[in-house]
Amino acid sequence: MYDHKYLLDFTTEVFTRVGCNSDDAAAVAAVLVAAELRGHSSHGMIRVREYYELWKSGRVNVSPDVKVVHETPSTAVVDGDRCFGMVAGVRSMHLAIEKAAATGTGWVAARNSNHFGIAGYYAMMALEHDMVGIAVTNANPLVVPTFSVSRLLGTNPLAVAVPALEEPPFVADFATTPIARGKLAVSEKKGEKVPLGYVQDAEGNPSDDPGILRHGGGMVTLGGDRLHGSHKGYCMTAVIDIFSALFSGANFGPFVPPSVAYLPVPENQPGKGTGHFFGAMRIDAFRPANEFREAMDLWIRTFRNAKPAKGEQRVLIPGDPEREAEKEHLKSGISVVPAVVDDLKIIATELGFDFRK
Amino acid sequence: MYDHKYLLDFTTEVFTRVGCNSDDAAAVAAVLVAAELRGHSSHGMIRVREYYELWKSGRVNVSPDVKVVHETPSTAVVDGDRCFGMVAGVRSMHLAIEKAAATGTGWVAARNSNHFGIAGYYAMMALEHDMVGIAVTNANPLVVPTFSVSRLLGTNPLAVAVPALEEPPFVADFATTPIARGKLAVSEKKGEKVPLGYVQDAEGNPSDDPGILRHGGGMVTLGGDRLHGSHKGYCMTAVIDIFSALFSGANFGPFVPPSVAYLPVPENQPGKGTGHFFGAMRIDAFRPANEFREAMDLWIRTFRNAKPAKGEQRVLIPGDPEREAEKEHLKSGISVVPAVVDDLKIIATELGFDFRK
Repeated sequence: MYDHKYLLDFTTEVFTRVGCNSDDAAAVAAVLVAAELRGHSSHGMIRVREYYELWKSGRVNVSPDVKVVHETPSTAVVDGDRCFGMVAGVRSMHLAIEKAAATGTGWVAARNSNHFGIAGYYAMMALEHDMVGIAVTNANPLVVPTFSVSRLLGTNPLAVAVPALEEPPFVADFATTPIARGKLAVSEKKGEKVPLGYVQDAEGNPSDDPGILRHGGGMVTLGGDRLHGSHKGYCMTAVIDIFSALFSGANFGPFVPPSVAYLPVPENQPGKGTGHFFGAMRIDAFRPANEFREAMDLWIRTFRNAKPAKGEQRVLIPGDPEREAEKEHLKSGISVVPAVVDDLKIIATELGFDFRK
Repeated sequence: MYDHKYLLDFTTEVFTRVGCNSDDAAAVAAVLVAAELRGHSSHGMIRVREYYELWKSGRVNVSPDVKVVHETPSTAVVDGDRCFGMVAGVRSMHLAIEKAAATGTGWVAARNSNHFGIAGYYAMMALEHDMVGIAVTNANPLVVPTFSVSRLLGTNPLAVAVPALEEPPFVADFATTPIARGKLAVSEKKGEKVPLGYVQDAEGNPSDDPGILRHGGGMVTLGGDRLHGSHKGYCMTAVIDIFSALFSGANFGPFVPPSVAYLPVPENQPGKGTGHFFGAMRIDAFRPANEFREAMDLWIRTFRNAKPAKGEQRVLIPGDPEREAEKEHLKSGISVVPAVVDDLKIIATELGFDFRK
């Protein structure tokens, strides 16, 4: 088990040694370790090697000139200059919060960025400012629109954080597909099939093969099939792609660059890098902040007191599982799987220092 | 078949005769007939009787004092004074557009409103202003959170309209459940079962009985079950409920008043009426408008040219089916089912005029 502070220091050191300034290295580390704390290890330390390889392949600029290229009182576009996604993400969300402080809401689109980790991190930045936070990103294409076999969309996540008063905040943070890509990889390694409704084969037939993406298959959108509303999942994933890419001038859908170095960057890209979109809304831009917070407490308590289905223990509020994981991880430490530990050791050695243990 | 202009005139006359001023009556009629034109008759003329009954029961104020109760440069809250939803909807969306013109984006929450028809109508109002439009609403509770049997959420729709250049706009407009409530009613009348994945029984077991809602059952969220991502559908439906009710001070979840007079209004409501939330974003608040529009054309063409799955003819862009329905209905007229025609005749007679044919 690793103390989260150690993982934070270690990761900051890695990205400092590859050339990031201390703020940027700290931002990358903070978002990756936040994912570990919140129980989403698929977006945590496992990404250190992926980011390191992206840097080695020249796809990430560790001395970026991140700048605002366009703005109005409530909007801005940030160009990340091929930075690590966290650098553009934290900068953009800060700007959204500043604009919300001044005009009620702030909306910032980012381009020329890369994988930014968990969307929830950015949405939650708004909470301490008495604001609702929103963050979305597009991602490299693995997902098919309804009726299609073409992989045109990412598992594009949406995160929304809403402050309450005595209750902990509502934090929804989810990929807009039935499952995350990482779950397919895990099932494949274990030699297991996956339930129907996650992936389809190269002709569009339902498949239970977690490796089908390497044979022309694709992930389906939330809903699974047309009969169960996959066209609504397609709409949602498409909206996130449009908000991430079209407002900012980043690449959309099939042109989004992969977040791993071993997959090639698509040719003839119409935009710049990966795109994100961030929003911050001051709650007192709508009604007195405490009135909003009290009403949110009531919302949360009403849903938490819902009657569980037979065989279920309780009804969850979005953010509950992650908050409970964080509490446990802060107390007992974070376990990192051996393969990832090995990666971290190799990277540390290459950079002239050590990963403990 | 009825010419849409006749239905528009007739519906305007109905709501004028119940006491609406001419603008308000025209707004109600415009949104209901737009639903018919776009092929969503579940939100069209069938609602005239429901609205009429709501008015007769005293739940709708036909002389409302609709006003802005709070605002900042980019936000506002509108109190609908128990108006028909369209009255608050059109007023709020106009205000969002005005604010976007001035500060880049505009966000308006409405409370003390009622059923507002198709969300897409309001989102599309932004298009002619070179803006992206967003509209959501909450609705009376029929939907269970994941792991629960308590009906705490509506089929809360999300609409997003995005302008293109030569291509028609992207218009997503969908209830955030696998199906709309109306489909259950149709299946029940036909004596048919529904596929598993739409509803559950009073204990939370999957059910194929479209009448199960009358026996303690509930509709499930998009995804269908936990294994297929229903918790993500729950997050999305919950976010729409929060945006609609918490920003405005309307009722949330289980307290949202029914849109039909034969269901009672919940007791001890914490808020005012039904809530909506509207957004408008000037595309040139992010990048030059024509650059955005051209990129959107490329987005649309890329998705329209996706390879269809085996047995499918084509891949659709959100808004395609509705636009095609509208074209056909403008040419050939709108068919209204006999039961609805009967309702319209009775209402017209009660109000001292006639429904033709």
